[in-house]
Amino acid sequence: MRKVIALLTEFNAPLEIREEEIAPLEEGEVLVELAASGVCGSDVHMWKGKDPRTPLPLVLGHEGVGKVTDMRGSKTDVFGNKVEGGDLIIWDRGVTCNHCYFCAVQKEPSLCPNRQVYGVVRDGCYASHLTLLPDTKVLLLKEHLTDEPDEHLPDRTEPAILVAASCSGATGAHTVELLPIRPGDFIVVQGPGPLGLFCLAFAFAKGASEAIVIGTRADATRLELAKEFGPVRTYVVEDSSVEARREEVMGATNGIGASVVIDCTGTPASFDEGLRLTAPGGTYSIPGIATPVGEVSVQIYEDIARKNVRVQGVWVSDTSHLYQAVRLVLSGRFPLHKLVTHRFPLERVMDALKVVDNKQAIKAVLLPGGD
Amino acid sequence: MRKVIALLTEFNAPLEIREEEIAPLEEGEVLVELAASGVCGSDVHMWKGKDPRTPLPLVLGHEGVGKVTDMRGSKTDVFGNKVEGGDLIIWDRGVTCNHCYFCAVQKEPSLCPNRQVYGVVRDGCYASHLTLLPDTKVLLLKEHLTDEPDEHLPDRTEPAILVAASCSGATGAHTVELLPIRPGDFIVVQGPGPLGLFCLAFAFAKGASEAIVIGTRADATRLELAKEFGPVRTYVVEDSSVEARREEVMGATNGIGASVVIDCTGTPASFDEGLRLTAPGGTYSIPGIATPVGEVSVQIYEDIARKNVRVQGVWVSDTSHLYQAVRLVLSGRFPLHKLVTHRFPLERVMDALKVVDNKQAIKAVLLPGGD
Amino acid sequence: MRKVIALLTEFNAPLEIREEEIAPLEEGEVLVELAASGVCGSDVHMWKGKDPRTPLPLVLGHEGVGKVTDMRGSKTDVFGNKVEGGDLIIWDRGVTCNHCYFCAVQKEPSLCPNRQVYGVVRDGCYASHLTLLPDTKVLLLKEHLTDEPDEHLPDRTEPAILVAASCSGATGAHTVELLPIRPGDFIVVQGPGPLGLFCLAFAFAKGASEAIVIGTRADATRLELAKEFGPVRTYVVEDSSVEARREEVMGATNGIGASVVIDCTGTPASFDEGLRLTAPGGTYSIPGIATPVGEVSVQIYEDIARKNVRVQGVWVSDTSHLYQAVRLVLSGRFPLHKLVTHRFPLERVMDALKVVDNKQAIKAVLLPGGD
Amino acid sequence: MRKVIALLTEFNAPLEIREEEIAPLEEGEVLVELAASGVCGSDVHMWKGKDPRTPLPLVLGHEGVGKVTDMRGSKTDVFGNKVEGGDLIIWDRGVTCNHCYFCAVQKEPSLCPNRQVYGVVRDGCYASHLTLLPDTKVLLLKEHLTDEPDEHLPDRTEPAILVAASCSGATGAHTVELLPIRPGDFIVVQGPGPLGLFCLAFAFAKGASEAIVIGTRADATRLELAKEFGPVRTYVVEDSSVEARREEVMGATNGIGASVVIDCTGTPASFDEGLRLTAPGGTYSIPGIATPVGEVSVQIYEDIARKNVRVQGVWVSDTSHLYQAVRLVLSGRFPLHKLVTHRFPLERVMDALKVVDNKQAIKAVLLPGGD
Repeated sequence: MRKVIALLTEFNAPLEIREEEIAPLEEGEVLVELAASGVCGSDVHMWKGKDPRTPLPLVLGHEGVGKVTDMRGSKTDVFGNKVEGGDLIIWDRGVTCNHCYFCAVQKEPSLCPNRQVYGVVRDGCYASHLTLLPDTKVLLLKEHLTDEPDEHLPDRTEPAILVAASCSGATGAHTVELLPIRPGDFIVVQGPGPLGLFCLAFAFAKGASEAIVIGTRADATRLELAKEFGPVRTYVVEDSSVEARREEVMGATNGIGASVVIDCTGTPASFDEGLRLTAPGGTYSIPGIATPVGEVSVQIYEDIARKNVRVQGVWVSDTSHLYQAVRLVLSGRFPLHKLVTHRFPLERVMDALKVVDNKQAIKAVLLPGGD
Repeated sequence: MRKVIALLTEFNAPLEIREEEIAPLEEGEVLVELAASGVCGSDVHMWKGKDPRTPLPLVLGHEGVGKVTDMRGSKTDVFGNKVEGGDLIIWDRGVTCNHCYFCAVQKEPSLCPNRQVYGVVRDGCYASHLTLLPDTKVLLLKEHLTDEPDEHLPDRTEPAILVAASCSGATGAHTVELLPIRPGDFIVVQGPGPLGLFCLAFAFAKGASEAIVIGTRADATRLELAKEFGPVRTYVVEDSSVEARREEVMGATNGIGASVVIDCTGTPASFDEGLRLTAPGGTYSIPGIATPVGEVSVQIYEDIARKNVRVQGVWVSDTSHLYQAVRLVLSGRFPLHKLVTHRFPLERVMDALKVVDNKQAIKAVLLPGGD
Repeated sequence: MRKVIALLTEFNAPLEIREEEIAPLEEGEVLVELAASGVCGSDVHMWKGKDPRTPLPLVLGHEGVGKVTDMRGSKTDVFGNKVEGGDLIIWDRGVTCNHCYFCAVQKEPSLCPNRQVYGVVRDGCYASHLTLLPDTKVLLLKEHLTDEPDEHLPDRTEPAILVAASCSGATGAHTVELLPIRPGDFIVVQGPGPLGLFCLAFAFAKGASEAIVIGTRADATRLELAKEFGPVRTYVVEDSSVEARREEVMGATNGIGASVVIDCTGTPASFDEGLRLTAPGGTYSIPGIATPVGEVSVQIYEDIARKNVRVQGVWVSDTSHLYQAVRLVLSGRFPLHKLVTHRFPLERVMDALKVVDNKQAIKAVLLPGGD
Repeated sequence: MRKVIALLTEFNAPLEIREEEIAPLEEGEVLVELAASGVCGSDVHMWKGKDPRTPLPLVLGHEGVGKVTDMRGSKTDVFGNKVEGGDLIIWDRGVTCNHCYFCAVQKEPSLCPNRQVYGVVRDGCYASHLTLLPDTKVLLLKEHLTDEPDEHLPDRTEPAILVAASCSGATGAHTVELLPIRPGDFIVVQGPGPLGLFCLAFAFAKGASEAIVIGTRADATRLELAKEFGPVRTYVVEDSSVEARREEVMGATNGIGASVVIDCTGTPASFDEGLRLTAPGGTYSIPGIATPVGEVSVQIYEDIARKNVRVQGVWVSDTSHLYQAVRLVLSGRFPLHKLVTHRFPLERVMDALKVVDNKQAIKAVLLPGGD
């Protein structure tokens, strides 16, 4: 049996569309026919060679949803349901070792040193098929496949709406899990990309009552979408001053500041503003920093010590976060399905990378099997 | 290669000492020559047929420490260190599936429905050898093997002192992890068996500053040992009244009660007293209830609602708790090595069960390899 | 200056409407003209003499919103804003001492032994005016007074919609604060009165994604309203079996059970069912038990220990919970304003008690100043 | 009635010893005759004019223990015990407003914007007498006054041993409360002054099992004392390399790093090393930064984001922390009484400031009433 892959053989060069034989399955492996594969901002970084860990050649793509077409041995999902041929599934993109200090003692598998990620350290989802390792954690998406009309989630039958749950969604769940949000809290999100929008959704889902979202002019569509998530005011960095944004936050919080600021910009430029918008006793969280970005300067007395502030790093996610993200998308409570703005066949993968790179898309999705 | 086992073939009948062939190892399995095997109070229950899950025939024994004598494939401990022939190891007695809701989403593997426990649902440690399943989590005990004199832990070279960490120690760690102890807290422990003494040690290790330990006349030795753990006063149930004990607790806490009460008696008789000694806002924890004991009556307004009290069930433990227990024993901070009061060769297993049953022992240990 | 009060002088007898002189204010006191006073289910209990603490004579009413008409000295709200004559305010119904163990060390002022509650241990809100003690914590309701159209909260100008925040709302916030809800959790609420509906709202606001609400036939209106709070299915106790409800919960949770069950019935009859619907590792919370109700029987092994379940008592609330409840009502996210089904002038207080007693009302409110 | 005070009238000039009339007590005030007053490192900063908030003239001294000599109205301690003339007491050095957002809603009174601190913004303990404001939270020290021999705490009768609990002790309790220490954790303390030693003690009291303490050559005595707190290895900054210290930490933790690093140096120089010694998923805490110290540079990807690390600011403390510190000192579990290395009569206050400034003392104490 053969599969089609889009292969990264050289940085900054077009991915090569190839056909090759699928290796015979080992005991416990599951073969998936990809229904939808997400194109993440970090894929663009990897394609450009900015992530020093990237092995060549590599099939990119760490976000995917697909149908089981073959398996060797038996497989169950997290609820003990038998996975069978034809089932639509999503999986934890990171395969962890289950027995190291971080897996077994700290119970934070996202820090497992043996974590293998599809599309990052081994072949991923820019392909017609993907072979899942035996230790891959799987969620069945039966609920998702319904054709019943749903007022909250009109596109319920389309697998593409779930791909972002694999990465930005799960990392958003992890981010907010580490934040002590309480009902009534006012929050700030910097950077309204898929990660920022999932963080916004989880923050509202955990009790935040108002938010300010700050983006750039290129983020215009994203900022518009953010307003549909709840009581959100938006600011464009180029069209407003740091002082004006600060006044807004202070005005809305009786001079206290935001209980929680989540920086999803991925750049150090927003660090200073974010930290200063954080209330005494609050938390400044930086899930967006996923590649080396150099140094930032911090006034540790004024901005951290005197205010009893916490700065929280967030590194990727685990199965518990994937589960939360899938549930949140399927609940239809937030218009997370609208994140998918662009769909391409696998062959047009370079167009997909381009609209992500230039921020034309919020989320671009490859449909390896066609529409 | 052959092994000696003590086999339960019939409830309430002497275990049969047999010799049999060791099955060839499967990929990932590790063969351990047992250096010490603990006899737990619940082994006595199982022997008597009081635990309805007990399969027959069965090699009892869920607590063990041993030397690696063979393995197929490679194995690492939780710190990524290679396990090699001759290494002394301890392991999580429960082997969990790693991919179910409780393992992967709740990250509470002690609730895994697929959990397999050596000596409970599959053959255990009342034997010269034990084959560990591939998913068994392992801790290397290199630190433990030292012959250097240690003022805190004189018996540092004896594996037997660690067997209780497998079960009572790990469950004690789990119990106290679920309790919001703060430095300065006053606590009560009911039932000073191995579990009670480990709970006492962990409670002190987490900040408790004073304790009352309540036992029966049969617990006399245990109550004496409890006093070596810190500022502890002890009460014998038969020789004091509920009122006197209550006055003591109230007197020591300005009339507030104990922040935390840990019931390790394993019987419902202590429930009422324990709950009433608990302070408003405090927690009453019941790790000792490990078999069906019938019903208890609770005045939910007076004893729970009005006092904002929490009643916390505790079910077994996972690798993180085993790790904590091993570290606590090896730290030498508490005289946990004194728990081992009786040592027997494997052939005298019936004597070991007897001294546990009649509470003559605090902890009895089998030494399958001889002293 | 004079005020009108409805005075409880004898249990089970009509309250007496009287006019009397308002005592001159002491330093720090604030005189409030009540705009709306809530009638709580526990007022009915007190009127019937079922709460042994009730002093006679007493002006009932622990829920209120009103306008400042006089004050001696200065007063600020929790945000440091100056309170001035004419301001609409709400306040913590419990006045705590700030310096005892529970206030200053545990920081759980709801357990303060010196807590004084308006309408419970001192005169309350069934009156035209109420004098607030100096230590009363106050929230300004400026946001609330707006006449701007609001799609989410149409009745934004009516003080009555906030009275339930004082008691059921704040206790609901406290209840859910003590529950480890995670996005995606399935919950059960037993008893859909004002407390149950606030618990439901807070549970959704903290991440719950689905709920089952169980009530009696008399709760029909309440069950209907519950469905407007989110993905809620309802059950009428008399019209369904315990088995059917259990099957529903198990079916919806892959056989695991509800992460959280909140019992707001106030009776012990629901205890058994609630505890058994709770998932392993979950929490069964009993905020509804506010008066002595006798004993319940618990199978501690099967229902608590083996399942690692927590039973959580909840006692009243503090200012942090009032704040959360006020924010939640004003957010308009849930139709909490629809709780107020009946409005009466102060003189018709007996009619108000009656519709609460017979469950005709969800929430009845007195409007001492007229509509 | 008259009192003696040591008054700061000009920065860097000798304090003036004066005698003046004690103002008549207001309702609720308590007059204390100081038995012992601590000299804190920050007093030296204030004396030098480095803390811009310092009002002139000012009686310094925020740490004190004393005897009640007069009071107007009644006063109770946190346990509701009546405070009476002659009682030895300690008190929360910060008087908070009880009704603001941080006091009443966040329940973090250490962030109260109205917090008044004796010896910082109003007259303090470098005096024979101090008048306590009505809202001051008080602990009775009856337990402390015993003359009974105590093997753990030989100097049990000397009030001086408790003064450090007021400030460094309470801040140490707050610091460790914000740290997720688990039994078995390895920790690092940078800066072994009174704050560092209290943090070390609280970390051990909460479960840490091993520590490395890093100081300067001037800290030699402090480093020696640190070794008496538990399994501690010490490093002198000038006599070892960053690499050697890093190797030590990594060697002791299987290459993982310290779960918790507590920086009590008060300077930014240690920031970089501390953050890099922190394990993935760990916390770097900076309670020592109590005055503006400029900026630090952080590699946010490498040191925070990629490692999922938390940086935790800690600002002062509240009554709950004072309580913990007093209990910890009185427990005698750690040699905290040995912190007091120098004692001076009030008149020799300049000598006291000097030995603190040049680190000759660990803790210097004034004995206004003589020995």
